[in-house]
Amino acid sequence: MLPGTKTGFELDPRLDAESIHVMWLGLCELRLRDDKRWPWLILIPQRPGTEEVHELTPLDQAMVSFETNMVAQTLKDMTGCTKINTAALGNVVRQLHIHVVARNEGDAGWPGPVWGYGVREPYRREALHQLAETIRGKL
Amino acid sequence: MLPGTKTGFELDPRLDAESIHVMWLGLCELRLRDDKRWPWLILIPQRPGTEEVHELTPLDQAMVSFETNMVAQTLKDMTGCTKINTAALGNVVRQLHIHVVARNEGDAGWPGPVWGYGVREPYRREALHQLAETIRGKL
Repeated sequence: MLPGTKTGFELDPRLDAESIHVMWLGLCELRLRDDKRWPWLILIPQRPGTEEVHELTPLDQAMVSFETNMVAQTLKDMTGCTKINTAALGNVVRQLHIHVVARNEGDAGWPGPVWGYGVREPYRREALHQLAETIRGKL
Repeated sequence: MLPGTKTGFELDPRLDAESIHVMWLGLCELRLRDDKRWPWLILIPQRPGTEEVHELTPLDQAMVSFETNMVAQTLKDMTGCTKINTAALGNVVRQLHIHVVARNEGDAGWPGPVWGYGVREPYRREALHQLAETIRGKL
């Protein structure tokens, strides 16, 4: 049985459509957004109905912080990026999810935010799965 | 002696110019951004030279998470906003700072991000200080 199914957890279809599964962390599902403009990971805490980090229990809040920072450190080490951008927004997709994006001077939209910028550029299918595999290996 | 001075901590002049001091939390200075388009708080961990949350010690990471979520909960309760947006970006100002913004359907730029959107609209001076006082009273 998949970790996501035993708790009745369902992934928002918009998150599902634009990212692929990387791995299960302790609390969160880790996914890779299919947009080659920026290395972009998304953590989704497996807590149905939650929209804000502060709605989680104190233990879950600590877990989200720990997992987000671990993923951020790994993404920075892997990419050598200039800056990590992390955010929990949710204005469009309300299911709680945390973005961790590797940014570099001169990348698309730099130094502005990535959300809502231009049009998503999917990877080649094998490049996407290779990147997910690389990230799995580093975590 | 101010908490900020005893550690040799200096606030980035751009953060200083566009926000006012609200209060000292355990680790962070809490500031209110002077932009009446959105209720917008900023936490600045008092750790000189730090640019990323994951560079902090594990204890400081936990403190930043705790203080950010406490501020987010308070801002949501105060404003009754639709969604809290939290982010650590730092593409322009590298000194580590965490944004906590109250968003509402139909506000400026909704549902897009606030960073880089349009032109800052300062409050009337007394309204800004009154809002900072109200926030201090709630925390």
